[in-house]
This record gives sequence, C-alpha cells and structure tokens, in this order.
Amino acid sequence: MAKIITLTTDFGEKDYSVGAVKGVILSINPEVKIIDITHQLQPFDLISAAFTLKNVYSYFPAGTIHLVVVDPGVGSKRKPILIQTEKYVFVGPDNGIFSRIGEPIKKRIHLTNSKYFLNPFSSTFHARDIFAPVAAYLSLGVKIDEFGKPLKKLVSLEIPKIQFRENKLTGEIIRVDNFGNLITNIQPENVKKGFRTIKIKGKKILSISRTFSNTPEGKILAYRGSAGFLEIGVNQGSAAKKLKAKIGEKVEITL
Amino acid sequence: MAKIITLTTDFGEKDYSVGAVKGVILSINPEVKIIDITHQLQPFDLISAAFTLKNVYSYFPAGTIHLVVVDPGVGSKRKPILIQTEKYVFVGPDNGIFSRIGEPIKKRIHLTNSKYFLNPFSSTFHARDIFAPVAAYLSLGVKIDEFGKPLKKLVSLEIPKIQFRENKLTGEIIRVDNFGNLITNIQPENVKKGFRTIKIKGKKILSISRTFSNTPEGKILAYRGSAGFLEIGVNQGSAAKKLKAKIGEKVEITL
Amino acid sequence: MAKIITLTTDFGEKDYSVGAVKGVILSINPEVKIIDITHQLQPFDLISAAFTLKNVYSYFPAGTIHLVVVDPGVGSKRKPILIQTEKYVFVGPDNGIFSRIGEPIKKRIHLTNSKYFLNPFSSTFHARDIFAPVAAYLSLGVKIDEFGKPLKKLVSLEIPKIQFRENKLTGEIIRVDNFGNLITNIQPENVKKGFRTIKIKGKKILSISRTFSNTPEGKILAYRGSAGFLEIGVNQGSAAKKLKAKIGEKVEITL
Repeated sequence: MAKIITLTTDFGEKDYSVGAVKGVILSINPEVKIIDITHQLQPFDLISAAFTLKNVYSYFPAGTIHLVVVDPGVGSKRKPILIQTEKYVFVGPDNGIFSRIGEPIKKRIHLTNSKYFLNPFSSTFHARDIFAPVAAYLSLGVKIDEFGKPLKKLVSLEIPKIQFRENKLTGEIIRVDNFGNLITNIQPENVKKGFRTIKIKGKKILSISRTFSNTPEGKILAYRGSAGFLEIGVNQGSAAKKLKAKIGEKVEITL
Repeated sequence: MAKIITLTTDFGEKDYSVGAVKGVILSINPEVKIIDITHQLQPFDLISAAFTLKNVYSYFPAGTIHLVVVDPGVGSKRKPILIQTEKYVFVGPDNGIFSRIGEPIKKRIHLTNSKYFLNPFSSTFHARDIFAPVAAYLSLGVKIDEFGKPLKKLVSLEIPKIQFRENKLTGEIIRVDNFGNLITNIQPENVKKGFRTIKIKGKKILSISRTFSNTPEGKILAYRGSAGFLEIGVNQGSAAKKLKAKIGEKVEITL
Repeated sequence: MAKIITLTTDFGEKDYSVGAVKGVILSINPEVKIIDITHQLQPFDLISAAFTLKNVYSYFPAGTIHLVVVDPGVGSKRKPILIQTEKYVFVGPDNGIFSRIGEPIKKRIHLTNSKYFLNPFSSTFHARDIFAPVAAYLSLGVKIDEFGKPLKKLVSLEIPKIQFRENKLTGEIIRVDNFGNLITNIQPENVKKGFRTIKIKGKKILSISRTFSNTPEGKILAYRGSAGFLEIGVNQGSAAKKLKAKIGEKVEITL
C-alpha cells in the first residue's frame, strides 16, 4: 500500500516552493501519495497552523506522515524535528505548530543526521532541503532513530486563554474561515451551565443554533463549529464582513 | 486500477476543510486517487458550481466519482444525494448543482443509510461527515442501492434565461474566469443567422473572432468559449476590468 | 512505476480549466500521477513561468513530464511544442517559457500530429485539447518522434539584463514571492568582489545576510535566495509592502 505524506504550509501557490518540495519527495520515493492539505495558511501564523493540523491529522489512515511548515524562524536555532505518535509521524520546525496534537507522543527526534538532507542544504528553505527528504525517507521505512537524537521537550504554542471574571467569560476570535465564519477559543463545555448573552462588536446573540438554516438569511448566529469550538456566523453571508471582525476580536459571554 | 474521486467545492484552502475531506476518504479507501478540480468556487454560488461541473465531469474516465459541495443549505432539509449515470457517479447536496449534467440519469438516491456516514456526524459539515465517506465506500464497490432510497425528482437550478424581443436578444454574464473573460448565457446557436452588434456596457462588438490573437492587444472581442458559450474578452488583458463588468451584467445582441 | 506529469499554469482555480486538463490526462492514462506545481502564476507572465519551472523541474525523478501552460498567444502562430532533455520531457507553447531550462536539449518537436490531440480541438484552450493529451500519450510510452516534426530553434525569453556602468550595477525585481520577498535578476556571482551598498527605493543595505533571523524583526535584509538570486526581504514581514516595491523596480549596487 502506498504511503501518504500530507503537506500543510503557508507557502502560497504563486511560486515554486510547493513544487520543489513535491519534487524532492518524489525523487526519493516515487510511489508515495502526496496529499495537499493547504498551502494558504496565513504567513507566519503559528496558531492557524496548529489548529488546522489539529482538525485534520486524525482523519488520515494510520501510518500517514504529516509535513507541516510554517517557519518564521528558518535558519535560526529553532530545531527541525520529527514527532511520533501511536498512529502518525509529524515533520517540521519546533516552534509550537505541533503543540495541539491531541494524542500521546511516543518519540521526539531532533533532525540532525544530514545523511537524510539535501546536499548541500540552504538556510532559508528547510521545507525542501530537510523536511521533504526526511518525510520521504520515513515513507521508505527508514527507522525513526536514524534521523537524529531524542528530545525531551517541545516548544509549546501560546494560545490566547479565555478569562473568567465574576459572571463573565471573555474569549476571542482565533481564526476566520473561507466563509467569514469567526472561530473563537471558547469551547461549548465552558458554557455548559447556560448563558445569557454572547456579545461581539456590540451585537448580542441569545442562543446557540444547531444549524445555519434555522436562522433567517443575513442574520448572525452562534453555533458549535465542526472543530469543536464556538463559532459565530451569518446565514448565507460573512460574519467577518458583517461585524467587521478580525482575529483577536473579543467575545464576551454573560453567564 | 485505482478509482478516481474528484473534488469540487467552495471551501477555499485557508483552513482545514479540504484536508479533513481527503483524510476521511483515504481512511476508508487508501488506494483511491483524489483529484482536486477546484476549492475556489465563489462561496454559495450554485450556478458557478453547476457550470464548472458541466465543463469538467465528462473528460474523466468512466467510473469516476465526482464529489461536489457548494452547500448553503447544509443542516436544513435539503437532501444529501447520489446520482448515477451511464459512466459516472455524483455525490453532494440536492440543491441544483447537478442539474446541468448533460447525460441521462439512471438512478437518484437519497443518502439515508448512516452506516456509511461518519459517526457521529455534524450538522454543519456534511462534506466531511456524509459525502466524503459515501464517495469512499462507492469507490470500494458498495452497491448504489445500499446508500438510501430512490428519489423521483431532483431540485433544478434556475439559470437566467436569454430573452428575445423583436430584433433583440438579451443575455447576461454568468461567470468571470481567472483572466477576466466574461462568460455569457448566450450560445452561438442563438445567433446562428447572424447579428449586427453585441453590446455590453455601451461598447459595441461587430463580429465573433476565432481567436484572441486576431484582435489588437488591449481590444475587446467576442468569441465562442471553450465551454460552448459566447464569451467576451480582451486580448492580453481583462475584460472584467476594462468594462468594469460583473456577473449579472446585461449583454444585448441586435439581430 | 507510475509516470509523473506535473502541471504549471496561470489558470487560477476559480473555474473548470484545471479540472478539464486533469480529466483529459486521466482518461488517456488513468494510472499516471498528476502533481500540481502551481496554477497561480501571474496571468500571461512568461518570466514568472520560466523561473518557476527552472526552480522546480530538476527536483523531480527522471522520466517526469512537465506540462507548462502560460499561453497569451493561444490560437496564433506560436507553436505547440515538446522538448526532450536527458531526464525530462517538457510540453507547452513555444513562447520562451522553456528557455531557462538549465540542461542540454536533445530534441525539439513541433506538435503537429492531431492523432494525439482531442478531436475536435478548440483554438482557445490548447492546454486541454493539445498539451494534456500529448503529455498523457507520452506517459503511455508513445515515441517522441510520433508527435510531430523536429524544430531547429525555440523562441527565447527576454529576461531583463543587469547593467554595469562605472562602479555601479543596476538590476531589477523580477518576481515577488508569497511572503513579499523581492527576487532580483542579480546573481551573487555578480558581486563576488564585494560591494558598498545595495539601494532600493532609497533604502540602503550594507551586507548580505546568511539568514532572516540574524536581522531584527521588521528590518530589511539582502540574502542569497534559494533560487540562486539576490533577494531582498524583511524579517517576519513583507519587503514588497514595506518598500512598496513591485516587479520592475530598480536595484542599484555600488561596487
């Protein structure tokens, strides 16, 4: 059965970066199946990368290798790494993008064995020169321990925390999707005991809808998003546009 | 031979949706070949989805499964469906996006057998939870009738009709492509007997060109587009920009 | 082993073009592996196409077929061609996009044998009607000479040349990548003997950095890009935005 390598990057698709990564992988293992998750992550946005990965990785079959590169620190001392869990292997920079993986980590390896890098390798494009060949050799069955030395700890991503004060909970928008839906950092569990109002940009929402189509066209609603967070949307429209809301916008819930 | 599943959606590629759909498919059938048609359809634009599908599906080999999701009514009473023709199977929501398929339909199935859905399934992301697994099980050879009950009728898409009045034919722009070419709802057959002028935004075009390069650079031309409709373009430029024309813009032909 | 066909175009992904090309290829050879390099090249930008190809093609395994279509002259007298080198075959229009291939050309063929075209074929969409089927038949093993007649010469792309005057070298920006980095037409070899200043938009840069992270956040730097040219960037930011610089912007180096 052909191995799968998924790609999740902020490279965009206007230039040669994605193609070079794919070429390197296929030169090493022409039989591997390359699956694009996205190359349109917001440049340098580690939170967005971590959440996208979290919402995607576990749908793939066991044995899948997830290559994830949002890498503002390329060429600095941030470590190139490999993470092994029960079912998957993750390859990319150690800058927090892997810190939302929701399953126990079995091995963390600092990629130091340049035998598995392109030769020579650049200091500005580790996706092509380090991560792609490592993922490809992994797909050929090279043993995890071959790639470098075990690491004890990984860099952890700081995700904005929700705050509780008296009868108020304050969260914020951490992502805006393609439809203009606003994804908050609030989990439905946080408001399990019910609430009075959800407030964003002065607008109040009084209940959580099960689906968009229960709400009149053009009206704002709150709902449990498919990623497990509270989201704010507009039926048949864009909440981001209607509310002029961006990442970082506060969301206040009166309990 | 590996089965092919094509994907045509309005999900964009900024978040995890496309990746989750691919993961679900590959978890069920790791051998299937996933082919991206586009994830950049205008959000909620059913006409655009129907035309894109119409212009693409029949180029694929017999046996291809076409997964199409533009789904403003997700979670409402619109039905999840499967359509079988002589050569293809189509999977997606019953909202008209399949109503431009140009070949006889052999079976229409209302997808009701949750055995072939993700468990549990959300009410906001049927592409991942219903359409992707159904397409994947189809690719494994599960029989069409297994997925639900036959339907008698499908929702039909309302496409703007051209109007004839005296010696005038009025059509409109129904799509703008990546180069800014304007695709009308007028078919060359409609002007088979010749015409005097094609008028759009006050500009007059006097003939139909066989190709762009017969027209001076920067000039407007009308031509038979590769999708079989009359199109308006600019040699080496964008007609949408030059004419400031959008979807819905009227095109008037004096016969 | 499955053959690989790569796709590099300016079609964008908003409409059916990419899907039609893929369908045609898979109908002829369902086993071939289609790899997207990019469909987001700047429309009609031959330089960008030539450079993207140059930076990508050689990473792929020997035997890969590279289909490249940026084709402002479609339907004119520009020739549809096929180029064979030691390791690769290239298919597309003869308009200069192949003139940066960095290895000896063994054969140039003018595609004239319509046996390997779609039938009928349009004059506006040669990617679907000529290049895709030719690439697919190539992947099935049809001999190069079958597709048409040898050509002696190819159209050559005019790339802006750097100019030397007294102690000054003047180059220009020829590409802007997804991060806003500015790629010049200057190669580090041109300034091998050292230099005093690099000037762009009135800003002076005094040295070439090995990596982004040596430069303070938000500051401008010059570096040897992974494509082998001098590039100008901003650590954790966009040089294009910060300098308001576009393609064609002059870059002046005092030697």
